[in-house]
Amino acid sequence: MAKQQKTAITPTRSDDFPEWYQQVIKSADMAENSETRGCMVIKPWGYGIWENIQSQLDAKFKATGHQNAYFPLLIPLSYLEKEAEHAEGFATECAVVTHHRLEAEKDENGKTKMVPTGKLTEPYVIRPTSETIIGAAFSRWIESYRDLPLLVNQWANVMRWEMRPRLFLRTAEFLWQEGHTAHETRDEALVETKLIHKLYEDFLRDHLAIPVVPGEKTEAERFPGAENTFTVEAMVQDKKAIQAGTSHYLGQNFAKAQNIVFTGREGKQEHVHTTSWGVSTRLIGTLIMAHSDDDGLVLPPAVATHQIVIIPVTPKADSRDAVLDSCNALAEILRNKCYKGSPIRVHVDQREIGGGTKKWEWVKKGAPIRIEIGPRDVEGGKVCLQRRDQAVMEKNFVVREEFIQQVPDILQEIHNTLLDKATELRDTNIAECSDLAEFEKHWDQDQPGWLLTPWNATREQEEELSKRLKITIRCMPLDKQEEAEASCILTGKPTTQRALWGRSY
Amino acid sequence: MAKQQKTAITPTRSDDFPEWYQQVIKSADMAENSETRGCMVIKPWGYGIWENIQSQLDAKFKATGHQNAYFPLLIPLSYLEKEAEHAEGFATECAVVTHHRLEAEKDENGKTKMVPTGKLTEPYVIRPTSETIIGAAFSRWIESYRDLPLLVNQWANVMRWEMRPRLFLRTAEFLWQEGHTAHETRDEALVETKLIHKLYEDFLRDHLAIPVVPGEKTEAERFPGAENTFTVEAMVQDKKAIQAGTSHYLGQNFAKAQNIVFTGREGKQEHVHTTSWGVSTRLIGTLIMAHSDDDGLVLPPAVATHQIVIIPVTPKADSRDAVLDSCNALAEILRNKCYKGSPIRVHVDQREIGGGTKKWEWVKKGAPIRIEIGPRDVEGGKVCLQRRDQAVMEKNFVVREEFIQQVPDILQEIHNTLLDKATELRDTNIAECSDLAEFEKHWDQDQPGWLLTPWNATREQEEELSKRLKITIRCMPLDKQEEAEASCILTGKPTTQRALWGRSY
Repeated sequence: MAKQQKTAITPTRSDDFPEWYQQVIKSADMAENSETRGCMVIKPWGYGIWENIQSQLDAKFKATGHQNAYFPLLIPLSYLEKEAEHAEGFATECAVVTHHRLEAEKDENGKTKMVPTGKLTEPYVIRPTSETIIGAAFSRWIESYRDLPLLVNQWANVMRWEMRPRLFLRTAEFLWQEGHTAHETRDEALVETKLIHKLYEDFLRDHLAIPVVPGEKTEAERFPGAENTFTVEAMVQDKKAIQAGTSHYLGQNFAKAQNIVFTGREGKQEHVHTTSWGVSTRLIGTLIMAHSDDDGLVLPPAVATHQIVIIPVTPKADSRDAVLDSCNALAEILRNKCYKGSPIRVHVDQREIGGGTKKWEWVKKGAPIRIEIGPRDVEGGKVCLQRRDQAVMEKNFVVREEFIQQVPDILQEIHNTLLDKATELRDTNIAECSDLAEFEKHWDQDQPGWLLTPWNATREQEEELSKRLKITIRCMPLDKQEEAEASCILTGKPTTQRALWGRSY
Repeated sequence: MAKQQKTAITPTRSDDFPEWYQQVIKSADMAENSETRGCMVIKPWGYGIWENIQSQLDAKFKATGHQNAYFPLLIPLSYLEKEAEHAEGFATECAVVTHHRLEAEKDENGKTKMVPTGKLTEPYVIRPTSETIIGAAFSRWIESYRDLPLLVNQWANVMRWEMRPRLFLRTAEFLWQEGHTAHETRDEALVETKLIHKLYEDFLRDHLAIPVVPGEKTEAERFPGAENTFTVEAMVQDKKAIQAGTSHYLGQNFAKAQNIVFTGREGKQEHVHTTSWGVSTRLIGTLIMAHSDDDGLVLPPAVATHQIVIIPVTPKADSRDAVLDSCNALAEILRNKCYKGSPIRVHVDQREIGGGTKKWEWVKKGAPIRIEIGPRDVEGGKVCLQRRDQAVMEKNFVVREEFIQQVPDILQEIHNTLLDKATELRDTNIAECSDLAEFEKHWDQDQPGWLLTPWNATREQEEELSKRLKITIRCMPLDKQEEAEASCILTGKPTTQRALWGRSY
């Protein structure tokens, strides 16, 4: 048996992928479970990633004409009841507020306990998503076609009572943005839905280094109440799929349920067409599973909490000050440079702990660039450059001035390395399949890739097949709906459409 | 009777201050009530102000070593019970989650209704503040003195069931930041508490143009569970006080209740000393009441959603394109300039509606600078400058290039005008008083100012006086605690301390 290399994370990806994921998060000190069922605490290193995702996406929303607003956390139960399909879709996972005060009571042992009192005549639900409460506002705000389009976004927490929570990927409370827009016509609303779908695809590729498959959900997988749901599906290293973002055309369903009407150009009262779309802290789980390795987190530079960590190497007391000054001076210079339009985020780690411990900590935290500077480097005008996309022990001594010049390019190179690897993973693990027996057998494998099949069967047939093989249609990929005519893998009927199947988180 | 000038807001401040406040918010399209009891919808023009407050304060927190994190919305009831004074302080205003799903039921008329089901064994409270849940995390994170100080901040929504809500100033749900820190010693924790207190004072003065009175709360007015509460008190135009931000030294109270211990430098187990501090969307209510006038909102430039609104004046079709191009070109140039470290926020209002309507809309929304550009201005290289701190009808034709150069100074001048006015209001409406009869009579006036009195009576005496006269001690002002010895206005006992009394929102 070959000698196994020691890794910073135990178990490795190949030994136990789900447990490896938990350990990467723990070693990087990103998040942890709390005593609130299914809810996590997002620690500074994890929250920093979210802040970067948030500010970068927000700029894109604003550049496309959207404005932020804020709507109530609590939704009156009666609002939820209005759109039946929507209510049914979320009923099993709603946290319900029924009381509005507490009173102290003595229990049987004489201990004081707080008990709920002040029962509400109408309970409230903590928003699982805000179509209904934002729709109510839209119905007040919109009077004529001149008020359209109305393009609103909200950054908020939402709650869906999850039975099997997993840090970042599936938590009872999560942070997200939810866009909600209203339009005069179906066409305009569909343009908006697709614009955002494309924005998500670009953002995942250019900021998170994740190449997605963009496509449309089938009826069985649609958002409750939507006419069309567009999705971006990411493949992670165990070849499972993660639905990373969705954009919905809601037709006039919510407009009719909530009476969102406007006086049209011809003077007639009409219902608006609405859309909604969102991405969440799930993106953080996605990027962990997409890029990290057996030594821990690997962060795409655009969203890394710190992009560069500078580690002073101070073996001798008499050169310590010179080294620290050199490190802090370099940090200041780098902070005045930009990568993807934002100032570079640099941290100088001055803690007095062992150099090896420190180095490995930043490896496990996935800092894209580590720079070591010792007394000889200060004298020689060099820095020791270490990149998270290269082997941990690899060191490159580079001229300090050249490094300063090249730093945005190096960050972009690291981004490209991650994106190339993720693209290769995706492309080598999607196969076409038109034979049902072969298709069924495929899913017996450990970590099966995705399969693209000719498909035009019914919703019921899809649901039966999905349930039996524990798979789902991730999407009908956008660029695969006008293929050469082939026989549907299930029904044999001719079709130009293709469905992409996989297992998912 | 003198002829009354027509104002954009009815009623005026002097006619009915509270109703004027509501109308300013409505005319500026900042926020509105929702059907969720006591909760508001913050509309884009209001939310933009919050985004600016948030990013500017956040930079200050980070510059002083604080990191953001995120903790669960729902707090287990048992957490709240641990610190008795704290639990008691918030018990009457807690929203309680008791169920985690809904089920469809038919009511007596055969209509489907959703009813709560899935009763929780332990209810949760929606955070009214997060000391208890963050304390639980701190007790997991802190092991030794090397983990201290721990400096964390959270941007979040919180909920306190308010019986008499008022937009921005007092809403059941509000947005805020809450800082939570843990330290080795009392002294270090007090330094932190005062650092933030000063940071708030500076921020209100330099960003919101509000000169506060910084001081310490008396025991009766302290945060439930705190040892010391420091406050910044703002005077608004009806001479009432608004507690705009607070910073608490919590002693070891929460540390003991939640077992937050560390191994000290001598190897002994000790309890940490904690602090907490926060400001909220209440700041928006404060700035409205501090600066706005009978024509509507007046925004301090640093936090204005748009700082400059450019209005194209296009009387003739053939010069329309040239005017629009000129406006958009000017906007681009201005967006590349900075005010207080951020790019200037410029909006070009191209809507095809009447010029008068448009102008008044921006007056009511409080945009600090309005620029009109017509065909003759384009030819003459001029712009028509109108400032919100000057009379609405005042117009200044200035050379375009000079305006571009001077714009940061003009914004700062507007800031200074607002700050000077607010400072004058504050300083002319705080009087010293050492005679009890005079003191008691003072509060019979309409819109009484604040009174500074020698004070060293007991908590009970303070509470009796407060209740009887419907006033409170806003604070013991920091710079008035070592005054010449005088007789306490109530007890006659000698004291060097002064209390500042007022009515408040």
